[in-house]
Amino acid sequence: MRLSTHYEQFLQNNRNRHLEELKQFLSIPSISALSEHKPNMVQAAEWTAEALRQIGIENVQVIPTEGNPVVYGDWLKAEGKPTSLIYGHYDVQPVDPLHLWETPPFEPEIIENKIFARGASDNKGQMFIHIKALEALLASDGTLPVNVKLCFEGEEEIGSVHFDAFIKAHKERLAADVLVISDSVMYAKGKPAIIYGLRGLCGMQIDVKGPKGDLHSGLYGGAVQNPIHALVQILDSMRNKQGEITIDGFYDQVRNVSEEEREQFRSLQFNEEQMSQELQVTELFGEKDYSVLERTWVRPTLEINGIYGGFKGEGNKTVLPSEAHAKITCRLVPDQDPDDIVERIQRHIDRHTPPGAVVTTTRFDSGKPFVTPFDHPAIQAAGRAYRYAYGVEAVYIRSGGSIPIVETFATVLNIPVVMMGFGLNDENIHAPNEHFHLDNFDKGIITVCQYWFELEDSL
Amino acid sequence: MRLSTHYEQFLQNNRNRHLEELKQFLSIPSISALSEHKPNMVQAAEWTAEALRQIGIENVQVIPTEGNPVVYGDWLKAEGKPTSLIYGHYDVQPVDPLHLWETPPFEPEIIENKIFARGASDNKGQMFIHIKALEALLASDGTLPVNVKLCFEGEEEIGSVHFDAFIKAHKERLAADVLVISDSVMYAKGKPAIIYGLRGLCGMQIDVKGPKGDLHSGLYGGAVQNPIHALVQILDSMRNKQGEITIDGFYDQVRNVSEEEREQFRSLQFNEEQMSQELQVTELFGEKDYSVLERTWVRPTLEINGIYGGFKGEGNKTVLPSEAHAKITCRLVPDQDPDDIVERIQRHIDRHTPPGAVVTTTRFDSGKPFVTPFDHPAIQAAGRAYRYAYGVEAVYIRSGGSIPIVETFATVLNIPVVMMGFGLNDENIHAPNEHFHLDNFDKGIITVCQYWFELEDSL
Repeated sequence: MRLSTHYEQFLQNNRNRHLEELKQFLSIPSISALSEHKPNMVQAAEWTAEALRQIGIENVQVIPTEGNPVVYGDWLKAEGKPTSLIYGHYDVQPVDPLHLWETPPFEPEIIENKIFARGASDNKGQMFIHIKALEALLASDGTLPVNVKLCFEGEEEIGSVHFDAFIKAHKERLAADVLVISDSVMYAKGKPAIIYGLRGLCGMQIDVKGPKGDLHSGLYGGAVQNPIHALVQILDSMRNKQGEITIDGFYDQVRNVSEEEREQFRSLQFNEEQMSQELQVTELFGEKDYSVLERTWVRPTLEINGIYGGFKGEGNKTVLPSEAHAKITCRLVPDQDPDDIVERIQRHIDRHTPPGAVVTTTRFDSGKPFVTPFDHPAIQAAGRAYRYAYGVEAVYIRSGGSIPIVETFATVLNIPVVMMGFGLNDENIHAPNEHFHLDNFDKGIITVCQYWFELEDSL
Repeated sequence: MRLSTHYEQFLQNNRNRHLEELKQFLSIPSISALSEHKPNMVQAAEWTAEALRQIGIENVQVIPTEGNPVVYGDWLKAEGKPTSLIYGHYDVQPVDPLHLWETPPFEPEIIENKIFARGASDNKGQMFIHIKALEALLASDGTLPVNVKLCFEGEEEIGSVHFDAFIKAHKERLAADVLVISDSVMYAKGKPAIIYGLRGLCGMQIDVKGPKGDLHSGLYGGAVQNPIHALVQILDSMRNKQGEITIDGFYDQVRNVSEEEREQFRSLQFNEEQMSQELQVTELFGEKDYSVLERTWVRPTLEINGIYGGFKGEGNKTVLPSEAHAKITCRLVPDQDPDDIVERIQRHIDRHTPPGAVVTTTRFDSGKPFVTPFDHPAIQAAGRAYRYAYGVEAVYIRSGGSIPIVETFATVLNIPVVMMGFGLNDENIHAPNEHFHLDNFDKGIITVCQYWFELEDSL
């Protein structure tokens, strides 16, 4: 292992330019969930490819898929050294409710050393850290301590619809010794975290149809099933008052967490009271007998993400609506299988659909839950890199979020996955006023640079 | 009683002009529920006033209220004859979902002798019948067989917010021997109905607040109350699987219907199977032991009119939303009291609000249920007028709808109410593609003209 700080001067000298480039990247509205933004997906992919070419990455390609393109590039001149695959995503979440944004979501602005924009933290800002780290090393040394392959997709926020097939089809090209992903949050401000487990995801849209058209609630109310009532009845049957999911067999495959792991969670001394205050809720809520960390890391959930039907305008309209709709998703933990859970939900809906209503469902894309061993040398090297950049010990944790593609990577390429996040929990990802702390942007680049030196002789 | 058909020639000669005038009236988007349409409310009131002046009605005034103006006019030269008060409303329901309209809601079009536009049936078309009936008589005879007072409001679709106070404040001016309203439907095509009972109305908006902002369902799901789940739980607790309302004491004041009245309902031989087919529902739904007519005429309901919260766009967004909302209304029957019912719902919500959620409610305007004796001479006269115009016997029925103001009129003015409707059940009132059968527009004018002759010596 070598120590080197020469690239840090380069980073300081080029910081303003780097931030201007990041602003350019963030100003592309690459919302994968909305088909009207299709042209922006290509634009963001081309922008990323150009950013790789500019810093000396080779074999850069924008590779078409049946959905949004994948950006690939590599630098493989470190003979005899390990090869690292870097993954990220250039697509972002939708921005609604737009009126709650204090600055326009695609007009990035730096306020108090935080950059505000959709995608600032999830994932453009974190993805850009890796590009700028490689630039710093290549510009300073003309070489890298390890071989790198970079692979950025544009469909992470919609379940990596086509990326799964991409990985399988490009297995040889993507072959590596370790996968590095920065698409997660630190444990707390100033407290880096390496994540060794993620929850899986599955879900569906539920559409309830009643009468052929909206009806007058006075003339028909009481004699015709109201689709909103039917939907409410179906949804309410899925969860009890204690927050436990009542889908038959939902918890059957949930792996028990060892007392050792629960003890590790407790040692993090998570402040539930503080979280409650920050979120401005009267109290936290969830399965009793489980702490907040356990509820979000090792317990599965079923959440209604959206519901709509009937009149929603100002005032009142006495309508018995024709339709009602909801979107639900589950977060899954080992060893739950997304397909199995979705089928259980479907059977539950079939059994609980009340008379006079017809329900159709559309499945969302899913991802399996994932856990990786945390004593792997590639992960321990990450701990040392964080210590170098942040001056503190990193913690090894799980996350309640999902990166479904991680499970595919690990299975198809059969390599360890190192999740080195630089986001923070309160950066409003998936919500209005998303932002990214530039302090972690700066330290993140140093952490990643240092990681390649740490990794050089570790694998 | 005199018989007269001389005005019918006038009606034939002027039919095209009358329809052009109706189109003008219908093209004013006087949606009382949406504040952006405030100027259109004044526009519709002024249009109505001018229509009254044109036909020789006197003392025409557009009277400002704290809300939308009231249009008043009278003709009181039939000395010694009864005075009839005619009520209608120039405001209309909102038009969403707009994309389901086959012709623009405020660009009236006549297709197959039906006029399509928002308000065509409810209530502009029916209200216009009265104006044109008076025109026909005044133009043909230069006089009327009875005295008339006309009073049209602009807030019926939002609960007659300020009209209640208006009636009380103008008690003397509105004094009459009978109130005539055409704002209801016939029993079936070609089968006129005189309505002797209406359901009352009350309701509220329910707003559920959870965390201060939208949260990532992966990072927080399982540990924070989801406002949509909380709302679903509250709403589902209000109705059981059989469609019975489970609000404590909801049915306490419901007056039992006599076996004689139920027998009268049965004699109407209502075709439930046909209704089910027309609405394209798999089956009808409601309280067992009650027929469809009973469920909609003499049983109270609680309906969710709208629900919204979280993500409703294309695709999926894994959000744990900050807020969820619903609008509910109850149809009430004698002797339920709207204020009592709303308070019971409020207490129910208070008792059923789950932890981690804060609920606020906003009451909608309400109206009491109303029943009028159907052997009153003014009502029997209406039966004869219908027989004259339609050549069939009218039926005496109740309606599931609400005209809250009817109860106020009856209480404040202490007069019988004759509800002579010319709409049809399938004319999509409160829904896309509202329309009005011109056959009933034509026969409606003759019915009303004849009614004034029938009434002349009845009271």
